Amino acid sequence: MARLVECIPNFSCSKEKDEAAYNALVDVAKSVPGCTLFDAQTDGNHNRCVFTMIGSPEAIEEVAFLLTKKAAEVIDMNKHVGEHSRMGATDVIPFVPTMGVTVEECVEMSKRLGQRIWDELKIPSFLYEDSASVPERRNLATCRKGQFEGMPEKLLQPEWAPDFGERKIHPTAGITAIGARMPLVAFNVNLATSDVEVAKKIAKVIRASSGGFKCCKAMGFMLEDRGIAQVSMNMVNYEVTPLNVVYEMIKALAERYGTYIVGSEVVGLTPAKALLDCAEHYLKLENFDAHNQVMEYHLVGME
Amino acid sequence: MARLVECIPNFSCSKEKDEAAYNALVDVAKSVPGCTLFDAQTDGNHNRCVFTMIGSPEAIEEVAFLLTKKAAEVIDMNKHVGEHSRMGATDVIPFVPTMGVTVEECVEMSKRLGQRIWDELKIPSFLYEDSASVPERRNLATCRKGQFEGMPEKLLQPEWAPDFGERKIHPTAGITAIGARMPLVAFNVNLATSDVEVAKKIAKVIRASSGGFKCCKAMGFMLEDRGIAQVSMNMVNYEVTPLNVVYEMIKALAERYGTYIVGSEVVGLTPAKALLDCAEHYLKLENFDAHNQVMEYHLVGME
Repeated sequence: MARLVECIPNFSCSKEKDEAAYNALVDVAKSVPGCTLFDAQTDGNHNRCVFTMIGSPEAIEEVAFLLTKKAAEVIDMNKHVGEHSRMGATDVIPFVPTMGVTVEECVEMSKRLGQRIWDELKIPSFLYEDSASVPERRNLATCRKGQFEGMPEKLLQPEWAPDFGERKIHPTAGITAIGARMPLVAFNVNLATSDVEVAKKIAKVIRASSGGFKCCKAMGFMLEDRGIAQVSMNMVNYEVTPLNVVYEMIKALAERYGTYIVGSEVVGLTPAKALLDCAEHYLKLENFDAHNQVMEYHLVGME
Repeated sequence: MARLVECIPNFSCSKEKDEAAYNALVDVAKSVPGCTLFDAQTDGNHNRCVFTMIGSPEAIEEVAFLLTKKAAEVIDMNKHVGEHSRMGATDVIPFVPTMGVTVEECVEMSKRLGQRIWDELKIPSFLYEDSASVPERRNLATCRKGQFEGMPEKLLQPEWAPDFGERKIHPTAGITAIGARMPLVAFNVNLATSDVEVAKKIAKVIRASSGGFKCCKAMGFMLEDRGIAQVSMNMVNYEVTPLNVVYEMIKALAERYGTYIVGSEVVGLTPAKALLDCAEHYLKLENFDAHNQVMEYHLVGME
């Protein structure tokens, strides 16, 4: 089975505002064997671009360094204007375990990369999400608060020394956030009620922020076109909080409010494992080893 | 997404009895770009070898032809002795849809291959399983009955003309069976009872042969080491008869006999889709498109 990591770096430039800089980054993203550039999105208003790359841990770590180096060459944050919050030429580098790799290994990758971009490029960095050195740094928005312009002052505050590098930004490339996180699953559950308050009450019970499941973010919404209420969730770690667990909890709570689940949806790409774990639960599978027993895992990386 | 077909041809030779012939076949199996030889098993007592290859439909169809040609060159069925039933140098060629390919496309592959090995090699063939021209030919054992030695006489019977070729075997290569079938899922469900009769009664209700689900074969067994009864199934088409359907039926029948399901297992490799379909069922997923929404499908065939 192939070992694969996804990396979704965000850069403070756009094809719309500086095509040469954007193209230079795309070229670097395609330059490392063993790494595939899946998608490149650019937004002129945000003056920001986001790459989605998948490859071996080694190739991904290397391309992330080379991209950070190139971004420092072609982007001057003193001249950057855009709607999106940002603090560095390479603003953020997330590593996501995709196949045959643990989130702990991605944490190690983020730490090696942080050290290297300080040693070789003199760009400081924060570790965030699962790589965070203290709980306050898990949230990217907290790390980025103050943005590029406010960062020199922020770094002098006792609690905001970078995880790598000195207490001052790189003069043109700023500072970067690097972190490992599990893949996110967008999971929505629809209820047989037009009362959005039911969905809101259920969301409050199941989400971590109000005392619910550790790796579940949830809100209650109205689906206006269908006239029904929806519990909309971001499952930020489906291994810690499985989809079937929140589904069964919502089912029980819906019954308590006199309604029931009519359907659900996963939005966008999801890792097979998040759903295979549900099949394992409902079929009461014993000794099931998805990575060895599911054919598709053997096909990835096949020559 | 990659388009992939699995092919598991069986040849009437073994590394143990004729290493040169075996090696010649292995070399051919590795010779076509776009096709990977996953596994090669050889059995001296059976005097038979089985290759597992996966690749694009085009590459698989080509390699299946080249292997049949090579087998006809290196194997003389008049001299073949082995415990396993056989009727040809290339005894059987199954095509199994693996990703982005329908079983109907595999049926077309089997028909083109049958025509070609007659046209170019003068080897006749039967179509079996989903490719069968009449229901009596679906079963490979029925096609092969009489074996190489009895085949000249069998082909003269009114109902046993080959699907391709004349009513006589190739003098040294015999006759070949070619067919498309869905991947098989070995699925067992364990019951909280030591009464094997309950498992046997349930198996009888759910299996096709006694009036149950069309694509389910089932038997009742005793798991002696655990002291519990098991319904052991071969699911021969999980799209026609989903795993969750037989699971729920067994659950209901177990209750009728005063027991319940304690667990289940899938044995060996299984296609992700057979289990993703179960997750879709139990989570009531709406508009779920596994091939577009499951990340791993996008990773297969990635460069």
